[in-house]
Amino acid sequence: MSSIPKIVILGAGYGGVLTSLRLQKELNYNEADVTLVNKHDYHYITTHLHMPAAGTDNPENSRVNISKLIDEFKIDFVKSTVVQIRPQDRKVILEDGTLSYDYLVIGLGGEPETFGIPGLAEHAMNIRSINSVRLIREHIEYQFARFKREPSRTDYLTFIIGGAGFTGIEFIGELADRIPELCKQFDVDPQLVKIYNVEAAPTALPGFDPELVQYAMEVLKNKGVTFRIGTAIKECTPDGVIVGDGEEIKSQTVIWTGGVRGNRLIEEAGFETMRGRVKVDEFLRVPGHENIYILGDNSLVFNPEGRPYPPTAQIAMQQGVVCANNLVSSIRNQPLKNFVFSNKGSVASLGKGEAIGLAFGRKYKGRVASWLKKLIDIRYLFIIGGIPLVLKKGKFL
Amino acid sequence: MSSIPKIVILGAGYGGVLTSLRLQKELNYNEADVTLVNKHDYHYITTHLHMPAAGTDNPENSRVNISKLIDEFKIDFVKSTVVQIRPQDRKVILEDGTLSYDYLVIGLGGEPETFGIPGLAEHAMNIRSINSVRLIREHIEYQFARFKREPSRTDYLTFIIGGAGFTGIEFIGELADRIPELCKQFDVDPQLVKIYNVEAAPTALPGFDPELVQYAMEVLKNKGVTFRIGTAIKECTPDGVIVGDGEEIKSQTVIWTGGVRGNRLIEEAGFETMRGRVKVDEFLRVPGHENIYILGDNSLVFNPEGRPYPPTAQIAMQQGVVCANNLVSSIRNQPLKNFVFSNKGSVASLGKGEAIGLAFGRKYKGRVASWLKKLIDIRYLFIIGGIPLVLKKGKFL
Repeated sequence: MSSIPKIVILGAGYGGVLTSLRLQKELNYNEADVTLVNKHDYHYITTHLHMPAAGTDNPENSRVNISKLIDEFKIDFVKSTVVQIRPQDRKVILEDGTLSYDYLVIGLGGEPETFGIPGLAEHAMNIRSINSVRLIREHIEYQFARFKREPSRTDYLTFIIGGAGFTGIEFIGELADRIPELCKQFDVDPQLVKIYNVEAAPTALPGFDPELVQYAMEVLKNKGVTFRIGTAIKECTPDGVIVGDGEEIKSQTVIWTGGVRGNRLIEEAGFETMRGRVKVDEFLRVPGHENIYILGDNSLVFNPEGRPYPPTAQIAMQQGVVCANNLVSSIRNQPLKNFVFSNKGSVASLGKGEAIGLAFGRKYKGRVASWLKKLIDIRYLFIIGGIPLVLKKGKFL
Repeated sequence: MSSIPKIVILGAGYGGVLTSLRLQKELNYNEADVTLVNKHDYHYITTHLHMPAAGTDNPENSRVNISKLIDEFKIDFVKSTVVQIRPQDRKVILEDGTLSYDYLVIGLGGEPETFGIPGLAEHAMNIRSINSVRLIREHIEYQFARFKREPSRTDYLTFIIGGAGFTGIEFIGELADRIPELCKQFDVDPQLVKIYNVEAAPTALPGFDPELVQYAMEVLKNKGVTFRIGTAIKECTPDGVIVGDGEEIKSQTVIWTGGVRGNRLIEEAGFETMRGRVKVDEFLRVPGHENIYILGDNSLVFNPEGRPYPPTAQIAMQQGVVCANNLVSSIRNQPLKNFVFSNKGSVASLGKGEAIGLAFGRKYKGRVASWLKKLIDIRYLFIIGGIPLVLKKGKFL
C-alpha cells in the first residue's frame, strides 16, 4: 500500500481544472496521488455556453477533452458520476465504484435555483452543460419547423427567458442574432417571433453599472427583445408562463437563467449550507473538515462588505489556484494561504460585436467591450491549454 | 374584357410545372391567358425529399423558386392556397380571392393515405413537402438532444418508418447513413439507435423485381435496419406503434410513407373518385368536364392490363406534356392526343453510393444504380430549368 496522500477532485469545471493543472505542475513525483472525477470526459467552458445554446456557435467549441488538459501520467482521470460524499468515511461513492481520499476538492457545480416557482423544474430548460444547450438549440429549431406545419401556433415562435443576469442577457443577445437566420432558413416572417426577458428584480443585471445596463437594454430592444423587468414568473406551464398579475405569455420555450444554488450532494454530505452552498473558511475549507475544499458554485465567499460574491468562472479559477497551493502546503506541512478574490472586472456580450464591461476601473461598451470579451476567453484557453488550445478553439472568437 | 381563353393551373408540382413550361413555349402571344396557382412560391423536387428529411442534404437543394422556372411575362403566378373548385361556375376559390377559368388543370398533389389506422394522422409525420421534411429532420435531431438529458428514454432513439415503398425505402437508406453522424454529434452510442421498417404487404417494394428487393433489404439490414415485413401497424400512439399481434414498439418518431390518396378538394368538387382520384379520359380530362384536366396524384390512369399506374414523378411529367399539348389543340380546334405512359424505368436510392433500378430493360444495383439515379435527377433539373438549374442544384448529387 502506498502511504502517499490521496487527493480526489470532484468535478472538472473551472475550479477543478485549475486545481488539477496547478497540482500537476507543483507536486513532485510521488508526493501525492491525484484523481480527477468528472461526469463527462470533457471540460466545458460555461461562460461560452450561451452561444451554442442559441445556435450561433458549435457546441464543440465550448468543450475540451480532459485528456487534452491534464497529464494522465500525473493525474488519474475517472469518468463517473458522484452519487454520495461521505466525509465520516473519507469516501466518495460513484455510480460505478468508490474512491477513498485524504484530501477532497469539491467543484461539482451548482443546480438551477427555481425559488419554488411551480413548473419551472419540469417545463423550463437551463443553460448549464453541453447536453443542456444542445437541447435548447435543437428545441428552438424544432419550434420553427413545427410552426411551418401549424401556422396558427405563434406560441411556437415565442421565446421566454427567465432571469436577466449575465447568462440570461448573454443568451438573449445571441438568440436575437440567430432569429433572422432561422427565419430565413424556415421561411418565417421575423415579425412573428417574440423574445421576452422576464426578471423579478427591479433591474436587469442587478448590481452592474446602471449606465451600462441601460446601454445593454437599448441594444437588445433594438434587436427586438421585449423586457418585462420587475415582473416575477408565478408559474411555468406546458403552455407558457404566468407572470405578475396573472397574465399568461404563451410559449413552448422557456429558458430559466434566474439563479444557481448549491449541489444537493453538498447538503446530503451533512455540511452546513445556505441555499446549498458552504461558507468556506479563509483557506477554502469546509468548517470542521480541514481536508475538504469547496470551490465554485458550491462555495460561499464574502466580500469585505459582508456580501457573498456571485458565483463566476473568475472566482472559481482563482479558488482553484489557492486550493492547489494549500493542498501542496498541507502535504508539505507549510502554512496555508488565505483566499482573497481579486476582481478583474466582467464583460457581458450582447451578441455579435456588442458587449458591456467593467475592467481596469473603466467602463467599456460596443465593439471595444466585445473585443475585451474575446481577450478574456482567449486568456482562459491559454491558461488551461496553452497556445495549442487557443489555436484550436479560439477560431470561433 | 379580353376574349382570349383563360387557363388556370392549380399546383406547381411535376404535372403543373411541366404543363406551364410547355404552354409557355407553345402558345403564341395573346393566344391564351395562363395563371399558375401554388401554395408556395417554390416548386419542390418530391423525389429528392428523403434526403433533407433525413438531414443528409439541405432542403434548399430540393426546391426551386417558381420565378426561376416560369416566364412571368407569359404566365401569371399567384401564390395562394386553393380552398374550393367549383366546376359548375368555372371558378376556383382561393383563400384570398377567386379565379375564373375556361380551362382548368388540377395538379394539386395527394394526401397521405392512412387506411383508417387510428392515430396515424395525429402522431405520424409524412415526407411530402419542404415544410414536412424540415419537421422530420428537426424532430430527429431533437430526439438525440432529448435523449442526452433523459438517458433512460431509449424510445427517443427508436425510429419507425411505416411503409416500404419507394419513399420509405429511400428515406431509410438516408437515415441509416445519417445516424452515425448524429451519434457522433451528440455523443450517443450507435448501438442504442433502432430503425424499424414496418410494412403490411408480404414484401418490401411490392411489384418491384424480387432479386433487387432482396439486394436492397440486405444493404439496409447491413446498415442496421430492422424489417418487419408482412406486419401491419394497428395503431399509432403518442408512445409508439402497436403492430401485428398487439406488440408495442416504443418510439417518439413515426414516419408514415404507406400510401397516397387524392386530394380532398377533388371529391369536394363533385367529381367521381376512387380513393380521392379521378379516372381521367384518354386525353387526361375529367369525364363529363371537357375543360378540366387532372394530372399526377389525383389522376388514375390504367395500364393495358387494367391496373392503375402508381403515382410517380415520371407519369406526372409525361401527363404535363400531353396536357399542355391538348390545351393548345383545344384552343386551336385541333384534335387531341391520347395519353400513353412510357415507363422509362425506376431507381430507388439506398443511401450513399447504393441503389437499385430497372431501366432500359436491365437491372442495376450498387454504385452504377446510384449513378443512374443521379442522371435521372440531373435530367429532371435540365428539363425544368436548363443548364443553369443543373449547375445550381446539381451540386448535391
